[in-house]
Amino acid sequence: MHFTSEQRLDGDVLEREFTLGEIPGILWTPESASASAPLILICPPPLGLGKVYSRLAGRARYYAAEYGFASATLELPGSGDRPRWAAADQARADLRRVMEAGEPVTDEIIDALVLPLVDRAVPEWRAALDDLLALPGIGGPVGYEGGIISIGVRMAAVEPRIAAANLFAGSLVPAAIFEEARQVAIPLHVLLQWDDEGNPRQAALDLFDAFGSKEKTLHANMGGHAGVPQYEIDAGARFFARHLS
Amino acid sequence: MHFTSEQRLDGDVLEREFTLGEIPGILWTPESASASAPLILICPPPLGLGKVYSRLAGRARYYAAEYGFASATLELPGSGDRPRWAAADQARADLRRVMEAGEPVTDEIIDALVLPLVDRAVPEWRAALDDLLALPGIGGPVGYEGGIISIGVRMAAVEPRIAAANLFAGSLVPAAIFEEARQVAIPLHVLLQWDDEGNPRQAALDLFDAFGSKEKTLHANMGGHAGVPQYEIDAGARFFARHLS
Repeated sequence: MHFTSEQRLDGDVLEREFTLGEIPGILWTPESASASAPLILICPPPLGLGKVYSRLAGRARYYAAEYGFASATLELPGSGDRPRWAAADQARADLRRVMEAGEPVTDEIIDALVLPLVDRAVPEWRAALDDLLALPGIGGPVGYEGGIISIGVRMAAVEPRIAAANLFAGSLVPAAIFEEARQVAIPLHVLLQWDDEGNPRQAALDLFDAFGSKEKTLHANMGGHAGVPQYEIDAGARFFARHLS
Repeated sequence: MHFTSEQRLDGDVLEREFTLGEIPGILWTPESASASAPLILICPPPLGLGKVYSRLAGRARYYAAEYGFASATLELPGSGDRPRWAAADQARADLRRVMEAGEPVTDEIIDALVLPLVDRAVPEWRAALDDLLALPGIGGPVGYEGGIISIGVRMAAVEPRIAAANLFAGSLVPAAIFEEARQVAIPLHVLLQWDDEGNPRQAALDLFDAFGSKEKTLHANMGGHAGVPQYEIDAGARFFARHLS
């Protein structure tokens, strides 16, 4: 992990861009942090970090200023300036085609779209975690949030350093990932948009039901995919504060 | 409304018992209240105020100490020392009989059990509200929470002084009340226990879906009817703080 830039943001937050091999990422740390601030991994949506920077940085600054958490994000495989791969482009084209035709999204399309992304992304996030936890001022425990729900399921199931996860309930979840959800045992906070145009409600409720965790909370709010209310940022932070402090 | 006793509780909260006609109730006010503290109506479960006092008083003291809210509760018709009536006893006996026999709970039983209680309770709570809002130190706006979900639906639908309601999703909801839910327009915060032995999950989700409110949030947690996590008290208080402050 190499730091490539550094700036101080309002509210005594230090923002550092880094690269992990070829992968760009950003780390936000509270300047007043104790020797071992908890760390939140904020997985971005697959739109490129440039496009979602202000949303991610807003959360990270809030977490730092209000709760003393450090936060980090990493560009997903195939997003932003990272190389795309032919199979992923094909899967996206297939999905677009059936959705525009009003045809059902088959398991084959979902698997082709999501599984290779999960298989590539999860080892990258785990490698980033190795380096992040070795930095001075970051001691864990670690929370995970955001991104594509299937990456979150795999991370929560396989990475023992993650103590709690805040996930956005989505559909387009491969059957294999749905089974992995049953293995998840850490506390979960799950957001659901009640009228999410791209995520059928029942599929999201079924996934919530499938998680093996004894402590899991679902927060459902009105509106579509982009309509998560502002107050849910604080609800998520309080969830992390209960489990990471 | 006549005050019958008064005591100071830890945390600078004044607790006063009162009677409204023949109906006993309790009012809790923060001693440091401004000229017009918001008021939370805490509807009790139908077990008698004596049995649920410590739970209600705990919430009221928290609301007063942390948020500066006043709170009030009122004994439900047929609960505690209030006179029972034959039709209610019969409806309860019918419900017990079919549940013990594993038979379906019919609409007739639900209507007989719930509708007369709603019809009696709602005018009492509205009358209490008249008197409570006339007291010095209580200025509204008013939040409503707790109790039997059907009373909450009717109160939220018909009482314009209630600005926000925090409800516990339940079943045994008469079809007429389900229709009234569509008329509710105020912000709602709805709690659901995912494995509530007495409240089928789908019925609770259907009721949440039916509410007409543009702003409604569902918080679902694991466990049975009595397993609502402690942190939901604060989540409810924050909901009220957003809408009553």
